Amino acid sequence: MDKIFTRNAVLEAIKSGNRTINKILISKTAHGSVISEIIRLAKQKGILVNSVPPEKLDKFEQENTQGIVAEVSSTDYVEIEDLTDMVKSKRNGLLVLLDSIEDPHNLGAIIRNAVCFGADGIIVPKWRSATINETVERTSAGAIEHIKIARVNNTSQAILKLKENGLWILGAENGNNKITDTKIPFPAVLVMGSEGFGIHQKIKEKCDLIISIPQKNTISSLNVSCASAIILYEISKHQSNNS
Amino acid sequence: MDKIFTRNAVLEAIKSGNRTINKILISKTAHGSVISEIIRLAKQKGILVNSVPPEKLDKFEQENTQGIVAEVSSTDYVEIEDLTDMVKSKRNGLLVLLDSIEDPHNLGAIIRNAVCFGADGIIVPKWRSATINETVERTSAGAIEHIKIARVNNTSQAILKLKENGLWILGAENGNNKITDTKIPFPAVLVMGSEGFGIHQKIKEKCDLIISIPQKNTISSLNVSCASAIILYEISKHQSNNS
Repeated sequence: MDKIFTRNAVLEAIKSGNRTINKILISKTAHGSVISEIIRLAKQKGILVNSVPPEKLDKFEQENTQGIVAEVSSTDYVEIEDLTDMVKSKRNGLLVLLDSIEDPHNLGAIIRNAVCFGADGIIVPKWRSATINETVERTSAGAIEHIKIARVNNTSQAILKLKENGLWILGAENGNNKITDTKIPFPAVLVMGSEGFGIHQKIKEKCDLIISIPQKNTISSLNVSCASAIILYEISKHQSNNS
Repeated sequence: MDKIFTRNAVLEAIKSGNRTINKILISKTAHGSVISEIIRLAKQKGILVNSVPPEKLDKFEQENTQGIVAEVSSTDYVEIEDLTDMVKSKRNGLLVLLDSIEDPHNLGAIIRNAVCFGADGIIVPKWRSATINETVERTSAGAIEHIKIARVNNTSQAILKLKENGLWILGAENGNNKITDTKIPFPAVLVMGSEGFGIHQKIKEKCDLIISIPQKNTISSLNVSCASAIILYEISKHQSNNS
């Protein structure tokens, strides 16, 4: 876990969105317009802000924190263009795009599934999504070190770009398009939607194929990480048959 | 969530193990040999005990709590004999036995998987296992209402009994016995082991078949709930082919 100190550095980190900020600690005695702006933006972007006694910041052994510390994820992200190039150069290349998965346990488990079934990379939205924090890293059980992750500002635009590059967009959803009856085209991007709401309508419209898991009993639905496990497993079978 | 009040009632509930106790609240002013015995047994059985101010127990509007309240799960368990009879009467009957799954999120997700893929019941150990608490109920997303659950004191003995009754014991484990290449016999019991350690050796020895998920990349391993999703999904395909 990396740290960012001082007011302007933290403000810039929030604005750029280039680093995943897990938490911001602000001394109870710190005030001023930059602090207010940081609190406002953090709230807007769903970043946790804790107000702490000033002595709590002493443990960081930093000469002058200016009463503020941001804890940032140490994950290095890649550019989506790098993932696109990589996946196009492979036989049966596969990316996984997560459309607003908010539970870090699910995000960690999906990363594990992606690694186990040989996906080439993961795309997550910068906002309205679980960030790669300690829970995700722990739940991924080390898998996160073995896969490239890109973050995008706008999921819809990213999908259009991927399509222009010749990737097939597969949307996973409840329904009748059984994955077992579907021929999967490659290179492909598997889109998994959020727990409660599935894939956003705007994104679903851009999918080339919808694939579903044949359930024996539809009284209940699968957890999104379990659903992704089954789909990635089935896709990996298609990949083997295809090579 | 049900409640049990008074010292002897709580003590008996712990001793019998017939109800799942999620938490015991004990007033800071409550003392005596029964209280000490309750604390000792609760600790031994991994039940959370909270020491609370006496006024906290007032909210239960019970005339005399004797300074103690146990919060118990409202899940009704069935007897393992009932599950055995039911599964034997079905074509392709299937039970799922969970060997020390300690994470309630995993337990809830596995229950969901079992319901989605039409398993007939779940067997959990009474001790050294996540109990059916609020986290499990929430993670199961309502699925827990649609499946019968039995609890057993001794997993090894339960398996011997199930075998005597003609059920086939399938152990899920990493390895080369690909589930896709295996003919699954029914009625069957699928045994899933704990996250870190897999199925206990004593239980593995009693399995009739070991089944594994073919992973493309073994640098990482699947979360136990994701693994159970894939196996239950594959077994449900076998069931359809078999009927």
